[in-house]
Amino acid sequence: MKPALIICSIFFVLIIACARNESPDIVMVIHGGCGNISPQSIPEASRKNYTDVLNRALDTGFILLQSGRSSLDAVEAAIIIMEDSPLFNAGKGAVFTHDGKNEMDASIMDGLTMNAGAVAAVRDIKNPITAARKVMEESVHVLLSGSGASNFAREHGIIMADSSYFYTEARWKNLQDLLEKDKAKQFGTVGCVALDINGNLAAGTSTGGMTNKLSGRIGDSPIIGSGNYANNKTCAISATGHGEFLIRYSVAHDISALMEYKNLTLEEAARQVVQVKLKDAGGDCGIIGIDKEGNIAMEFNTSGMFRGYVTSDGRKEVLIFEEQK
Amino acid sequence: MKPALIICSIFFVLIIACARNESPDIVMVIHGGCGNISPQSIPEASRKNYTDVLNRALDTGFILLQSGRSSLDAVEAAIIIMEDSPLFNAGKGAVFTHDGKNEMDASIMDGLTMNAGAVAAVRDIKNPITAARKVMEESVHVLLSGSGASNFAREHGIIMADSSYFYTEARWKNLQDLLEKDKAKQFGTVGCVALDINGNLAAGTSTGGMTNKLSGRIGDSPIIGSGNYANNKTCAISATGHGEFLIRYSVAHDISALMEYKNLTLEEAARQVVQVKLKDAGGDCGIIGIDKEGNIAMEFNTSGMFRGYVTSDGRKEVLIFEEQK
Repeated sequence: MKPALIICSIFFVLIIACARNESPDIVMVIHGGCGNISPQSIPEASRKNYTDVLNRALDTGFILLQSGRSSLDAVEAAIIIMEDSPLFNAGKGAVFTHDGKNEMDASIMDGLTMNAGAVAAVRDIKNPITAARKVMEESVHVLLSGSGASNFAREHGIIMADSSYFYTEARWKNLQDLLEKDKAKQFGTVGCVALDINGNLAAGTSTGGMTNKLSGRIGDSPIIGSGNYANNKTCAISATGHGEFLIRYSVAHDISALMEYKNLTLEEAARQVVQVKLKDAGGDCGIIGIDKEGNIAMEFNTSGMFRGYVTSDGRKEVLIFEEQK
Repeated sequence: MKPALIICSIFFVLIIACARNESPDIVMVIHGGCGNISPQSIPEASRKNYTDVLNRALDTGFILLQSGRSSLDAVEAAIIIMEDSPLFNAGKGAVFTHDGKNEMDASIMDGLTMNAGAVAAVRDIKNPITAARKVMEESVHVLLSGSGASNFAREHGIIMADSSYFYTEARWKNLQDLLEKDKAKQFGTVGCVALDINGNLAAGTSTGGMTNKLSGRIGDSPIIGSGNYANNKTCAISATGHGEFLIRYSVAHDISALMEYKNLTLEEAARQVVQVKLKDAGGDCGIIGIDKEGNIAMEFNTSGMFRGYVTSDGRKEVLIFEEQK
């Protein structure tokens, strides 16, 4: 009996290990925007600056998940790291509007309750993702915009910042270049999706939008179902790219709907939406996603997307270009 | 041969008539908001005021469709009639925010191209639906908000209006009542969906939002995929009700997704979303819809919804309460 028991125990341990490997308990995926990113446009010397921030965002959120905190906490913490960096188009590094202002959008969604909060076209909130969460948790609304959103944030103790905080030389130069060409350009956005120890999904997205956009323009990032979505039944999604296309095609909700109604996997659904629907429509975009089993998707139809993931079964990667995928 | 030819002709005409009856060439459906509307709250004497405006909106749009104009033209024209009436919560009759302003949201979407335009939290545009269309047709953006949207509208020759235009005694009293209770209340919104002679669908939605809402609050009406959606492959939808729920559940896109991915009819999909998903979530709402075959849905989980439809096979109805459905 004893050898049989040992063999049984080994099988049991192997099954558990396999199951854990297929379905890690906790998972986090982040992105720092997709676009025309190539080894030429991001020289080797500066790549480490980007990957350092991405690694720090992953580590910050993952430590929270490991300590049993919620996916919402992890998403907010990881996005704050990216918002505080001048390298990504969100918070500190937000791009400029046509008239030389920084106007930011952000949203967060809880897959357990399907509660959501968002701010749009805000100019003076240091971390828009924190304001979005406050809207979700302490208002009867989902989406607040402009000075109304700023007033709400101020009244709720959110850290504000004036325009000098958001000024970065690189973004100002981007605007001057585009003003000469009279064109708007999409770039950047940051996002995070997470699965916590309780099996709850959350998604967050934050952006400065499109360089040279009209004042008051709202992109997909604060739009639940377009740039952000979380639903414990299906998946958590954060999107980046040409916001107007992401809005018109309800990208984040469409991926969830393909999973729920057509039984596609997260990977199949993400590929269908990003590589077929949006590519056919001419919409440059990328998404990150996690399904309820902890499977990951990082899909984009541009030349690159700043991205990374970490899982409780020990996998971690930070990537920029397509060939590394 | 002659009698046979006559019989054949009669059959042919009958087949055509039947086909037309099943699939009318042109169809229009409108709503003027859902809510706690009962025969008690809308006394017999004032019902005609509402149905007169609804009839005029239907007739105005339908004449355009009959003359071969696009579903977009019909949707815009019908919504303008309702925006210009003080009876509905859009344009002239918009409700007041917590701080006593009128802030309006509107959107329009073209099912053929899936182009869309929207304005949000605008205070001084007489007909927000016209501004939404202008955003769709003459900007690179989908959604403009606040003073940026107003500046865009002004520069594009849209008729502006000051706060005195939007002041109505009834809405002001609504706000005072709610300020005493410190509650926000949803009511109203107008919308229209149309199918034109070329088989193209369009949807439009316009609202003053929620009485006593925070300044800057954006509801579902300008959110493509939530309060408004049009896609020639599936349907055109305009929604009304508690906007925060309509956003979180991506209501308009969800109905389309259930049709596209689960092969539900428009009626089945609308019922599933409104009577099951939203009702279970506690979200009071209603939708109007037309599918690509000209079938109609008018579904709501409240006690009433101002609504009406007209079709090229001679059907027309204007309704308020559930029992008349």
